[in-house]
Amino acid sequence: MTVTPKIRLFVEHPLAEEQQVTLSREQAHYLFGVMRLTTGAQVALFNGQDGEYRAEVVEAGKRGGTLVCRDRIAPQSMPPDLWLMFAPIKKARTDFIVEKSVELGARRILPIQTEFTNSERIRQDRLQAHATEAAEQCGATFVPEVTELHRLDRLLADWPEGRQLMFCDEAQAGAHARLPDTDAPWAILIGPEGGFSDAERARLHALPYAHAVALGPRILRADTAAVAALTLWQTTLGDWR
Amino acid sequence: MTVTPKIRLFVEHPLAEEQQVTLSREQAHYLFGVMRLTTGAQVALFNGQDGEYRAEVVEAGKRGGTLVCRDRIAPQSMPPDLWLMFAPIKKARTDFIVEKSVELGARRILPIQTEFTNSERIRQDRLQAHATEAAEQCGATFVPEVTELHRLDRLLADWPEGRQLMFCDEAQAGAHARLPDTDAPWAILIGPEGGFSDAERARLHALPYAHAVALGPRILRADTAAVAALTLWQTTLGDWR
Repeated sequence: MTVTPKIRLFVEHPLAEEQQVTLSREQAHYLFGVMRLTTGAQVALFNGQDGEYRAEVVEAGKRGGTLVCRDRIAPQSMPPDLWLMFAPIKKARTDFIVEKSVELGARRILPIQTEFTNSERIRQDRLQAHATEAAEQCGATFVPEVTELHRLDRLLADWPEGRQLMFCDEAQAGAHARLPDTDAPWAILIGPEGGFSDAERARLHALPYAHAVALGPRILRADTAAVAALTLWQTTLGDWR
Repeated sequence: MTVTPKIRLFVEHPLAEEQQVTLSREQAHYLFGVMRLTTGAQVALFNGQDGEYRAEVVEAGKRGGTLVCRDRIAPQSMPPDLWLMFAPIKKARTDFIVEKSVELGARRILPIQTEFTNSERIRQDRLQAHATEAAEQCGATFVPEVTELHRLDRLLADWPEGRQLMFCDEAQAGAHARLPDTDAPWAILIGPEGGFSDAERARLHALPYAHAVALGPRILRADTAAVAALTLWQTTLGDWR
């Protein structure tokens, strides 16, 4: 019996049996400096496309190293074609939304600037690294892309044909969520802590592809709303059915 | 037109029109020291029983103060009779579970010691204060009790008649959640990060009132599982229907 390696690592490299994988300086530091692995140790690798491979350390250096893929231990598994759009909030809670989106299964994470968004800047590279780390820890074989900050009005003006939008509207409190059962791609939009502006709300309600849902009778923080909305969508239309 | 006061405060005191409420030293420090309120300022008060009242500061001191209730601005609203049982994890994530349980609507929060629980001690008073603060911020008129740490085996041995139990079992991955639609009180049990032991799992599956549910195909952290399970329960059986 073979055991799945405890350390999982996302690499931007093709994976296949006997494939050699060269590590970056940061990856080498993590595996050999922090985790103290030596040659012969096993690591699980995934790249978001080829599933998950057991790989063996064949060269361990301070500034680099090499692994060789052995057998494939899990097939590639993709989350549903679901975007999670949210207005960035405080750092820890933004990190949390990114982490939870990976665990719960989103394909793409889009920080959104709305009229009442406080945070006008994000560190896209830091959030992307956070998403990668979340995937490594939760056993996913896919890492969602975290995009740069988009303006909500521009994104809606250039909305992709056919993609449905579920948006969480406090003003709907009490209304039951009814989402059309369709194979279309979807997006979830979580409003900022200050809520949508009247103009934004009117515009969203007028969109034929947008569906307002309520998340219970209490006021939820944006990070709670993100997790609740992802759960609601996954159990209704996604891969939790 | 009157505006709802921005500051909400939980008090352990009966509330009614013209009722005087004496503040504790900590509350006076918060209102007059931190928030800089002076006499005449308005605060919303709730006590978990009498709804929410607009109250006016009539005496503001460094070590105490007095408010007088004016009109009632919200009725008392109780969450469903739902317990959230979870194995404590790292401090920030335990705080998070408590906060989210309040927002999503639980009646009682029970930290649980399972065979694989790492944390054998909790600061009950700190977690209770965190629950109170979450209620103040999310507009709830009820603060769930956070209990001391319970051992899972003892709690199950002394389980209250009629209460149903939904437990989240990773080993069920892929199975669809089917919860009996009943008016009975419920409890949700979130396992520790290391999972349930074989003995615990066998015991849970043998209980007639226990229902295993899966939370999707990916591995969830305990804090994610808590929010997802609360959402699932609330949309299926609770006050989000």
